[in-house]
Amino acid sequence: MIKDDNSLNLENENIDAFLSNNQSRKTVVVQGVGFVGAAMLIALAHAKDKNGNLLYNVIGIDLKDNYEKIQAINAGVAPIVSLDEKIAEGYRMAKQNGNLLATYSEYAYQFADIVVIDINLDIQKKKIGITKDYNFNFENFSKAIYSVAKNIREDTLVLLETTVPPGTTEKVVFPIFKEVCFERNLDINRIYLGYSYERVMPGKNYLHSITNNHRVVSGINACSKDRIKQFLETIINTDKFPLYALHSTTAAEMAKVLENSYRAMNIAFIQEWTEYSQMLNVDLFDVINAIKVRPTHQNIMQPGFGVGGYCLTKDSLLADWSLKNFVSPSKHLDMSLNAVETNDLMPLYTFRLLKGKFPDLKNLNISILGVSYLPGIADTRCSPTELFYDSCIAEGALVNIHDSLAEFWNEKSLTISNDLDVFSKASQHDVIVFSIAHKEYTELSSDKIIQLFPGVKLIIDAANVMSDLVAIDLLKRGVTVLGVGKGHWNLLDAA
Amino acid sequence: MIKDDNSLNLENENIDAFLSNNQSRKTVVVQGVGFVGAAMLIALAHAKDKNGNLLYNVIGIDLKDNYEKIQAINAGVAPIVSLDEKIAEGYRMAKQNGNLLATYSEYAYQFADIVVIDINLDIQKKKIGITKDYNFNFENFSKAIYSVAKNIREDTLVLLETTVPPGTTEKVVFPIFKEVCFERNLDINRIYLGYSYERVMPGKNYLHSITNNHRVVSGINACSKDRIKQFLETIINTDKFPLYALHSTTAAEMAKVLENSYRAMNIAFIQEWTEYSQMLNVDLFDVINAIKVRPTHQNIMQPGFGVGGYCLTKDSLLADWSLKNFVSPSKHLDMSLNAVETNDLMPLYTFRLLKGKFPDLKNLNISILGVSYLPGIADTRCSPTELFYDSCIAEGALVNIHDSLAEFWNEKSLTISNDLDVFSKASQHDVIVFSIAHKEYTELSSDKIIQLFPGVKLIIDAANVMSDLVAIDLLKRGVTVLGVGKGHWNLLDAA
Repeated sequence: MIKDDNSLNLENENIDAFLSNNQSRKTVVVQGVGFVGAAMLIALAHAKDKNGNLLYNVIGIDLKDNYEKIQAINAGVAPIVSLDEKIAEGYRMAKQNGNLLATYSEYAYQFADIVVIDINLDIQKKKIGITKDYNFNFENFSKAIYSVAKNIREDTLVLLETTVPPGTTEKVVFPIFKEVCFERNLDINRIYLGYSYERVMPGKNYLHSITNNHRVVSGINACSKDRIKQFLETIINTDKFPLYALHSTTAAEMAKVLENSYRAMNIAFIQEWTEYSQMLNVDLFDVINAIKVRPTHQNIMQPGFGVGGYCLTKDSLLADWSLKNFVSPSKHLDMSLNAVETNDLMPLYTFRLLKGKFPDLKNLNISILGVSYLPGIADTRCSPTELFYDSCIAEGALVNIHDSLAEFWNEKSLTISNDLDVFSKASQHDVIVFSIAHKEYTELSSDKIIQLFPGVKLIIDAANVMSDLVAIDLLKRGVTVLGVGKGHWNLLDAA
Repeated sequence: MIKDDNSLNLENENIDAFLSNNQSRKTVVVQGVGFVGAAMLIALAHAKDKNGNLLYNVIGIDLKDNYEKIQAINAGVAPIVSLDEKIAEGYRMAKQNGNLLATYSEYAYQFADIVVIDINLDIQKKKIGITKDYNFNFENFSKAIYSVAKNIREDTLVLLETTVPPGTTEKVVFPIFKEVCFERNLDINRIYLGYSYERVMPGKNYLHSITNNHRVVSGINACSKDRIKQFLETIINTDKFPLYALHSTTAAEMAKVLENSYRAMNIAFIQEWTEYSQMLNVDLFDVINAIKVRPTHQNIMQPGFGVGGYCLTKDSLLADWSLKNFVSPSKHLDMSLNAVETNDLMPLYTFRLLKGKFPDLKNLNISILGVSYLPGIADTRCSPTELFYDSCIAEGALVNIHDSLAEFWNEKSLTISNDLDVFSKASQHDVIVFSIAHKEYTELSSDKIIQLFPGVKLIIDAANVMSDLVAIDLLKRGVTVLGVGKGHWNLLDAA
């Protein structure tokens, strides 16, 4: 599938041919065609001026290793799986319009008026639940930045969108540009560099979430910031979501990891109260709904099974790395890291509920309903189901997994059943665990549950899937019912 | 001042005489005429039916030790100091209307249709910054409950409003009523008992905050809950703030301490980011404002000097006591307690900023502007200024204190200057610390600051009092300026 190096010339000829059309348009090169880049490409390829003319020639660049994605884009097909039909349609249309190309050749940077950097910068915990010991380095990231710096012209605008340790643009990215500009005899003051993060959400409104969302803008100097602002105004609905200009790139980088740490912290906080309220037979959802009526308390979170996704599980660690490495080696962001640890280990609470009823899991048929990390999406990245699944398997349970939307679980290389009726007939089900509130699950009646899983002995609702009425009805039929955050069900059980 | 026991008869005769007027009205007895009870008395004394007729005869009961407060009420004077003029006016009017009486005689409970319990239930840290070691017992609280139980008639409605460890109504209060009803041969099913907490805020809208605020209602049974609801509808603006019925008194008690713990946690979380952002020269206020545009992040807190008041500093400890004593002796609410510890110790961060500039405080003239715990109020309970003040004094500094509103600092038995001009002339001022954002402080220009404090060497703005422009202007005039959450001022200093 991967072409050999001789093909580079052909790749570059394609770029020349592509750009010879519509030379009046500006050229935007997006580095990285993953989860964010793939949406940016479509937002950019369809950006129009006031007269309805397409604004940009858009080139997506990724590593040669990702040649399948490059081929997909050039064939008018989305390089990623998405529930949002506008993405697939966007790629089809862009192919028709002829203003989108993908390549692995760095040659493309030479023609860029604007470069948008959407590559990943990973930080990896060595062990789940331990946040102070992680693998992180700038090696691949720096390589990617060098490839831009070594090829761009003067007057190019470079926008970094990758989530990074706060301080990265000033302390890592800008020094690379300075070094290379000096070598290439370019004027560093004519390279415009800024930072602005996206707030893309997976799911059905994936593309919409990139164009209709609040954004901060920042630059290494006032002129860079202005140009970033002007550029983003061409793709963001700024009438409804005005851009917020921050005073430094470090501030903008911090905003991203702080907002995700805020959310992670608030989720972890509720876990502590979930375990406490459960012991006092309290319905914590009811309590939280009573509190949420106050505008000062509207962001309070709800009990649940766990936390997944690419951001909340790691962004506090990026901030911690920044604190240690850019500022003070002896310090940690203890509260924020502890919150991530609490969230990482949260599925073990549901596991303890299970063990309370079935101390011996050997050969028990456990069915987990839900592997995506949010209701209504198919994204399984860092799914909290993983820890629960592993814990069950480790004790000899027979585990089956269903998800309404996720078809494949990359992390486990598992094909996932999407059809409840088929799933129900494929094996026995001693225990059902609802781990995410997909609509299909919340709509299940007690009749339907019994019909699907006639032999079920225990149902654990870890995702607020079942109403009290469904729970009471199941209890009457002899099914033990437990719910995370639903301490009041203890009293039903006793009654 | 305190009457002797012989006067009890006279006290009871006063009650008889008071109640012989307007026998058609229901009688409400409020136990405790402190911060909450004093406002409840006025809300109740002025509650009217649809025709504009006063609804209640209201009796405030407190201990004989508080006879000064009892005398004040009977003289038509507020028993507490408040910036809210409606409170003083309310007491004057109630005296005119003749439907408010105060007493220390438990005799009054015999006539109550409704008893509202507004006494304090304290939990005391043995040492500031250590939350797991506290003094707490139900001794005085139980005594107060017994005094109600031993005197009320059947069909009395008892509403507990005191902030208590979740579980208290079920496990402490109700058992007392059961025991005493058995002794007195009363039908426990004809005693109606429920819990609903207030959300009173000190300051100019003190009375308004008790009548115009969201409320939860709960009861030991459905009938009690209904009656609590009907009663509160007579004093709360439920058109705008509908009552929220919770499924148990424990749930309602938990809502109170959870909402305050939520807030305490979010304040503590920002302290961690304040210290981090300061080291990266970031303006954290700017970052937070950029984040707050998202509805999901509107409750994010701001950097500051510290946390005071009666609720956020202790409510997590009440929950912790409940967890340990009602549920599981080996457990703690670690995250929530750590947050309170962080908040308790927060003023030491400002102290460290001070020490960074003046390692030796001996004979240094330090002026603290602000001792109340919120802007625009005069309330000094658990003021964070105390720890900062003590730390300065311990190192031999000469400390002066100003506050725009608080006239007396009970905790230190100090009279506080309220006049900035007088204050400025009364001593030297080497260092100024803004610890709370009273309006008077935020309105100070750099000219005015220099005029008031001509010899000042260092100003620490721990309460977001000064704008960047004021800070820059002061720097130009040779004053060192530091701000909590204002890391970008580091760069001004260097420039």
